[in-house]
Amino acid sequence: MTIHVSRKEHFNAAHKLYNPTWSKEKNIQVFGPCANENWHGHNFDLIVTIKGQPDPETGFVVDLKKLSTLIRSEVIEKLDHKNLNMDVDFMRGKLASCETLVAEIWKILQPAIPAISKFGKLYSLKLYETPRNYVEYFGE
Amino acid sequence: MTIHVSRKEHFNAAHKLYNPTWSKEKNIQVFGPCANENWHGHNFDLIVTIKGQPDPETGFVVDLKKLSTLIRSEVIEKLDHKNLNMDVDFMRGKLASCETLVAEIWKILQPAIPAISKFGKLYSLKLYETPRNYVEYFGE
Amino acid sequence: MTIHVSRKEHFNAAHKLYNPTWSKEKNIQVFGPCANENWHGHNFDLIVTIKGQPDPETGFVVDLKKLSTLIRSEVIEKLDHKNLNMDVDFMRGKLASCETLVAEIWKILQPAIPAISKFGKLYSLKLYETPRNYVEYFGE
Amino acid sequence: MTIHVSRKEHFNAAHKLYNPTWSKEKNIQVFGPCANENWHGHNFDLIVTIKGQPDPETGFVVDLKKLSTLIRSEVIEKLDHKNLNMDVDFMRGKLASCETLVAEIWKILQPAIPAISKFGKLYSLKLYETPRNYVEYFGE
Amino acid sequence: MTIHVSRKEHFNAAHKLYNPTWSKEKNIQVFGPCANENWHGHNFDLIVTIKGQPDPETGFVVDLKKLSTLIRSEVIEKLDHKNLNMDVDFMRGKLASCETLVAEIWKILQPAIPAISKFGKLYSLKLYETPRNYVEYFGE
Amino acid sequence: MTIHVSRKEHFNAAHKLYNPTWSKEKNIQVFGPCANENWHGHNFDLIVTIKGQPDPETGFVVDLKKLSTLIRSEVIEKLDHKNLNMDVDFMRGKLASCETLVAEIWKILQPAIPAISKFGKLYSLKLYETPRNYVEYFGE
Repeated sequence: MTIHVSRKEHFNAAHKLYNPTWSKEKNIQVFGPCANENWHGHNFDLIVTIKGQPDPETGFVVDLKKLSTLIRSEVIEKLDHKNLNMDVDFMRGKLASCETLVAEIWKILQPAIPAISKFGKLYSLKLYETPRNYVEYFGE
Repeated sequence: MTIHVSRKEHFNAAHKLYNPTWSKEKNIQVFGPCANENWHGHNFDLIVTIKGQPDPETGFVVDLKKLSTLIRSEVIEKLDHKNLNMDVDFMRGKLASCETLVAEIWKILQPAIPAISKFGKLYSLKLYETPRNYVEYFGE
Repeated sequence: MTIHVSRKEHFNAAHKLYNPTWSKEKNIQVFGPCANENWHGHNFDLIVTIKGQPDPETGFVVDLKKLSTLIRSEVIEKLDHKNLNMDVDFMRGKLASCETLVAEIWKILQPAIPAISKFGKLYSLKLYETPRNYVEYFGE
Repeated sequence: MTIHVSRKEHFNAAHKLYNPTWSKEKNIQVFGPCANENWHGHNFDLIVTIKGQPDPETGFVVDLKKLSTLIRSEVIEKLDHKNLNMDVDFMRGKLASCETLVAEIWKILQPAIPAISKFGKLYSLKLYETPRNYVEYFGE
Repeated sequence: MTIHVSRKEHFNAAHKLYNPTWSKEKNIQVFGPCANENWHGHNFDLIVTIKGQPDPETGFVVDLKKLSTLIRSEVIEKLDHKNLNMDVDFMRGKLASCETLVAEIWKILQPAIPAISKFGKLYSLKLYETPRNYVEYFGE
Repeated sequence: MTIHVSRKEHFNAAHKLYNPTWSKEKNIQVFGPCANENWHGHNFDLIVTIKGQPDPETGFVVDLKKLSTLIRSEVIEKLDHKNLNMDVDFMRGKLASCETLVAEIWKILQPAIPAISKFGKLYSLKLYETPRNYVEYFGE
């Protein structure tokens, strides 16, 4: 029996979409108001999904309190009330888009799951930038 | 690296579920209050998901502003503040159910995505008729 | 001790904003797409708030199950899966705007509350046409 | 043409996470506050998804009113305003976790779908314990 | 300049509506499924509103982090993953209705606000039992 | 007959809580992570409520399309995808808190309402910084 178990966390961050190899004009032409050099920001929601078999002793694929603690210490702490372009070590030199961010979060969380779950693996990450714009990544 | 990118748009429309080859009685028997001949309506939410690789220059699978503009001009404009049975050319002669509507929207959007995204393809359409009733279509 | 107790119900209906004493052109000029002669529609949410003292025996200002039953039988049944301009006796000859509708619902519910609550009175009605447009009425 | 059609229902229930073969201390160590012996509770949301081809006569994969009636009579009635550990026959002797619950609901609904849908099959069950914690099950 | 500042917190609890001076039959007659002797439960949302003038140095009526910490330590800690009838000292001997609960929470929070805000006073408490049922209390 | 009519708009912006007359240390001590010198950001929701009598000809207290256009051109355009501390003329030299922002928005909108509504006046502004933190202002 395989179950997908999900936990939602959130963080509030500033960012801008800006390719430093382009002129300011090209950045504005491509990214529009998202390229505002003084930044803008969002309330991001991150949904982490673990797939696996329930542990027969606990009924859990993964203990959601442990998963929440892991996401907060390894991801949210580094992103919440931060500037995604300036303050986040794993985003340095990268475009601060949701597509990039979700792939970097995968690299952090995927190897950390075995320490909290015998039977589950990271299955997907869903990242909402706004209630109307979001991305999903399955690790490949 | 493959990412699913989604954009939510909405429209407010009237419709009724009515098979014109049936009697009024049979329509009411099958569709219940949804067959009310004077129509009823909904605030529909449409989520369009594009799947593909991020463009290395922009970090985008698809520019969500371009996707939003496309959905609005090709789909929402034709549905918003309209009667799905009477006012919508691509629904003429069809049952105004969500199942039918989502398949017709696919036919419009699927060929239009290449013009706004080099790397992404239409992956799914999710259509909410109410917060509790929705359909999803993957193009097949 | 005075408490405000609220219950949310919903209904799906078609309507158009149309003043029959005006020309079609003037209706479209004033009401825009809301005047579409073939109707459009919404998922409406109605929040009914009762104000009063809790009954010492039950701890209730009003039994929310009785309130729900009352709203459904007296209001929702007449509006759900209906056309607000054509099918609703208490809206006949009136503009099918939220402002008008909420005042008519007040006339129905206000005198019916004493039968289900010794200590509470109708305090307000809040009517959402969409998640972004709503009206509130306090009976005066 | 294959469509996924979903219906959301809800129920309010008490439960505790408690393995009766363990000591009280071990239960608290593993399950934390979820093991509170006097129970706690949630507003659960259950999303049932049916996958199949629309019936050419009705445009429906499944009549959502029939699906709602089925879910309510076979599942919600047995869970709503109940204690998942004490009051629910199909949960007797089982851990009252979402993982277990969703698999038991599958066993009830999966064989009951053919009676209401010629073309659809149960595809997935999604169970929200809170807006931030949920599980999904695909029957395997 | 007077501003209302609000903070939402949540807790998950079990309860039943039960008047111990009545027979089991009368409890079921009055409270229906809410009187289920084995309890049921909810995800409660509590919104605390402070009214006052912003502090000219900080721009704050109240520091929302301090308000959150206060609500969590004085209220949520006592209610979350608890049984409102059995585990909560300030609810002992009282009907476990939202009306009663919100008034008891007022008694706890109202005198505690001056310690965290020079300029603000407790204005209202809003308690959601479900997304469709809620109460509001203004302290009188 | 007096009706309150509300319209919700949103904007995404960066800000920091920072009193320039204080040391960096004192800012961090008072404002915590909100004082991060490289900014953070939010998806803000703004609800504008107009109170008045419906125009007998249109049934409107205020045309919500005109209200939306006004809010977008006078407020949202100046805040969306901006830095509240650096990019917004009417916030210059002020603390970028929600309390300050909502009072400044009032000064812009209050005198502009008569141009779009004969019978309505600005009644309140509600500003959500996150779904859990918000302020409300009634103009005094």
